[in-house]
Amino acid sequence: MSLLPDRYVIGVDLGGTKIHTALADGDGNILAETRVPTETIKGPSHVIGRIIATIEQVREQAGLPAGFVETVSVGSPGPLDIASGIIHFSPNLGWHEVPLKKLLQEGLRTKVMIDNDANLAALGEHVFGAGRGVNNMVYITVSTGVGGGLILGGRLYHGATDGAGEIGHITVLPDGPPCGCGARGCLESVSSGTAIAREARRLVECGKGQNILTRAGGDPDRISAVTVAEAASGGDQEAVSIISNAARFLGIGVANVINLLNPDMIVLGGGVMEIGEPIWQGVRQEVEARTLGAARTHVQVVPAGLGRRAGVLGAVALALQMD
Amino acid sequence: MSLLPDRYVIGVDLGGTKIHTALADGDGNILAETRVPTETIKGPSHVIGRIIATIEQVREQAGLPAGFVETVSVGSPGPLDIASGIIHFSPNLGWHEVPLKKLLQEGLRTKVMIDNDANLAALGEHVFGAGRGVNNMVYITVSTGVGGGLILGGRLYHGATDGAGEIGHITVLPDGPPCGCGARGCLESVSSGTAIAREARRLVECGKGQNILTRAGGDPDRISAVTVAEAASGGDQEAVSIISNAARFLGIGVANVINLLNPDMIVLGGGVMEIGEPIWQGVRQEVEARTLGAARTHVQVVPAGLGRRAGVLGAVALALQMD
Repeated sequence: MSLLPDRYVIGVDLGGTKIHTALADGDGNILAETRVPTETIKGPSHVIGRIIATIEQVREQAGLPAGFVETVSVGSPGPLDIASGIIHFSPNLGWHEVPLKKLLQEGLRTKVMIDNDANLAALGEHVFGAGRGVNNMVYITVSTGVGGGLILGGRLYHGATDGAGEIGHITVLPDGPPCGCGARGCLESVSSGTAIAREARRLVECGKGQNILTRAGGDPDRISAVTVAEAASGGDQEAVSIISNAARFLGIGVANVINLLNPDMIVLGGGVMEIGEPIWQGVRQEVEARTLGAARTHVQVVPAGLGRRAGVLGAVALALQMD
Repeated sequence: MSLLPDRYVIGVDLGGTKIHTALADGDGNILAETRVPTETIKGPSHVIGRIIATIEQVREQAGLPAGFVETVSVGSPGPLDIASGIIHFSPNLGWHEVPLKKLLQEGLRTKVMIDNDANLAALGEHVFGAGRGVNNMVYITVSTGVGGGLILGGRLYHGATDGAGEIGHITVLPDGPPCGCGARGCLESVSSGTAIAREARRLVECGKGQNILTRAGGDPDRISAVTVAEAASGGDQEAVSIISNAARFLGIGVANVINLLNPDMIVLGGGVMEIGEPIWQGVRQEVEARTLGAARTHVQVVPAGLGRRAGVLGAVALALQMD
């Protein structure tokens, strides 16, 4: 009699810099995992080859013979089409209309499912993380960019064309800074790590922000959200003001989501949230000021529970259809 | 053998100024309807008595004996609790914690269902109006205030505490005008009929806006969104600018909803939308500029199809459970 569980699935979190792959049993327990550089520069075929290699690697790590894996599920930057598994366009990957699902299915000869990376991180937090057992949950990741995923009625909500949850592109300041999407004043353009670093660089260009510059080794190009956060926690008022501003707009974005969706929980993840109290304080303040009655008193605004594993765990959950 | 259909239901749209009541058969055909003043000034018991009287009236109008009506469904201003049928608070009705469902059930001795008025207008448009057959639809009414209702996955989405769809209170201008809710720059504070009239009055206070003032018979207190719209359609540039500004922010609000929910359709109703092209143009422009890829090309932004009957028809649909 075998002691092996009867199901094994693979979850893959495909990012612009790293491929994170995990093998899990039918209960979602991770038996093996690996992270490798994506090497996007070498093109889609190379990246897909690397995904397949990581899958082989975790299979061998777990001591499973080939053919034992039932489903492979991949979270990818989008926009993408879930049914066809085509990645329409991804600046991070440098991809344009790549039939990821088809190519992986040909290479792996197993069932492949594709979803948006932020959606799968939301699903990961819902199934294994901060949002376990919650009916209506919105996940927001504040990192280089700002993304999100919606769990409504206990399930991932994709919208009409798999494009729901673009929280990073809701307008929070109509005449604000230009955003990569072509609009102005998107949440991403004021609250992302990129926006925080940009504001600091702008100060330095005016001969201000010397404390921040020093922390970046005197090189404006090395200023990042982390540099600004460090300066802020060291008491630098210019840095504090940049962080508060980003936090304020993030709070406005969160408040908008609460007023629209009346969720049970908002889960905030991503590197910018790790700045800690200065960000959380701004968020709480705006949520308090800008949301209504029972929606405000009911909602929990909490930190993500899975850190960088949210995406891969969400991919596992999708493969196991745990939403 | 009777030719009567086997089911009759009553839908009630309870507003701050009017009670609109309709009797429908099992297919949602309206057999009788009536509109009476709410007379909120006389208190909740009086208003509930009037609702019951309108129900008797449409029953008699339709020639139905007492006891033939299966379900009464009421759309009420909120916030409210659907399960208990308690209206927590309504400035329009002057109500505070009124157990509407219980009181109506006692008076009518029939099944009573309560929902938010904007939710039922959304349901009305979805079942009988512009949004028939649409899977994900957002209804927005721009009138004295701004309200909304969400149809997600073909059904009304209520959120965690029946507070979803508060589109009027998403922030579109962080340091904008104060809103009735206590925050600043809510969509309602810049795009509602009330906001349009307020901006015109502000001009008049500065000695400007004379064309608008003339159309209000020289009395600033009589300036309404209609006065401003008339002046705008007569070519008055100050009025045009007020309307464009309201339209711009409405467009930003609509774009935010599209980015977040990726709906198939946005249905816009309410008096302000009747201003016509100057409002629609601003909305289209911002949606075009501020939404992403497939979400933008897929979504239809259309006028409501049922006018002032959306609420009562939604109440009928709820009573027939047609969502």
